[in-house]
Amino acid sequence: MSEELEKRFERRQPDGDTHERDICARCGFIAYENPKIVVGTVVTHEDRFLLCRRAIEPRKGFWTVPAGYLELQETPEEGARREAFEEASAELQIGGLLAVYSVRHLSQVQLIFHGDLVDGAHEPGIESLETALFKWHDIPWNELAFPTVHWMLGHEAERRSGATGLPFGNPQGEGVQK
Amino acid sequence: MSEELEKRFERRQPDGDTHERDICARCGFIAYENPKIVVGTVVTHEDRFLLCRRAIEPRKGFWTVPAGYLELQETPEEGARREAFEEASAELQIGGLLAVYSVRHLSQVQLIFHGDLVDGAHEPGIESLETALFKWHDIPWNELAFPTVHWMLGHEAERRSGATGLPFGNPQGEGVQK
Repeated sequence: MSEELEKRFERRQPDGDTHERDICARCGFIAYENPKIVVGTVVTHEDRFLLCRRAIEPRKGFWTVPAGYLELQETPEEGARREAFEEASAELQIGGLLAVYSVRHLSQVQLIFHGDLVDGAHEPGIESLETALFKWHDIPWNELAFPTVHWMLGHEAERRSGATGLPFGNPQGEGVQK
Repeated sequence: MSEELEKRFERRQPDGDTHERDICARCGFIAYENPKIVVGTVVTHEDRFLLCRRAIEPRKGFWTVPAGYLELQETPEEGARREAFEEASAELQIGGLLAVYSVRHLSQVQLIFHGDLVDGAHEPGIESLETALFKWHDIPWNELAFPTVHWMLGHEAERRSGATGLPFGNPQGEGVQK
């Protein structure tokens, strides 16, 4: 919120609410802020994993999976396919829900799918410097953009090894420390 | 958004964005709107289902499960337990993720858990007129508040009958018609 807007808003609990909100002192508009939904996909093609090198901050130059914020009136699967198309010009066949992660300090819930790259074709969209299919041992582990990318690649490997009980959650409470 | 605020905002696509947003014509503040996360729980105690009769609109007087909007910096499980406590003074043991529903026209993603009512105790909170434990055949099917309550009760029955492949999604594409 800009400084100018901030001055017009006051922090208090609306009648009947359980939490404090930013309320406009002039018109009473209540600016509800809610956690955001990130949708993404661990995309594979045969035994290789599709990663995108970020062209934008945060973590420009580092590798991630196609993922981003869910938009209004979009299902999570649609959002995951849109992000794969925007970031890697990739057409996906979504397989299922791989993981649901919670990142407390970002107020994010991440819905991560596993999916197949339909025809093996990919190329960088405007938010990517580069896209590539990596064999497991060639994944640039030290250049991954976010901790959750480590988690989901590991969970996809477990799924491929026959793990049950999907979707996975945060590994051992990581990311939810208060 | 109030009429006064609306006049200050214009609808356009920010540079590098893929969607139109409401942008303040004076300060450039971008009012991102995102889908909301609803968290809730099908709470059972032995062979009975905990329902709450709504004291608030929408659907005041109709029965629902404890559920509501996830708050900032809250995990989905924490939010589901908070809602059960607020609406039914209920202490839960969350069992796992039962269903992930998408309700397109409300831009909602619902994360629905199954859980046990720890000590069988419940009483209405401020948002409930009444709380009750119903055997399956006594559930007030014609007085349920929302279609998703039907879905999740049915899915919990399937889970108890040994269904695999959880979490469930929308039944046969219901709720996601464009």
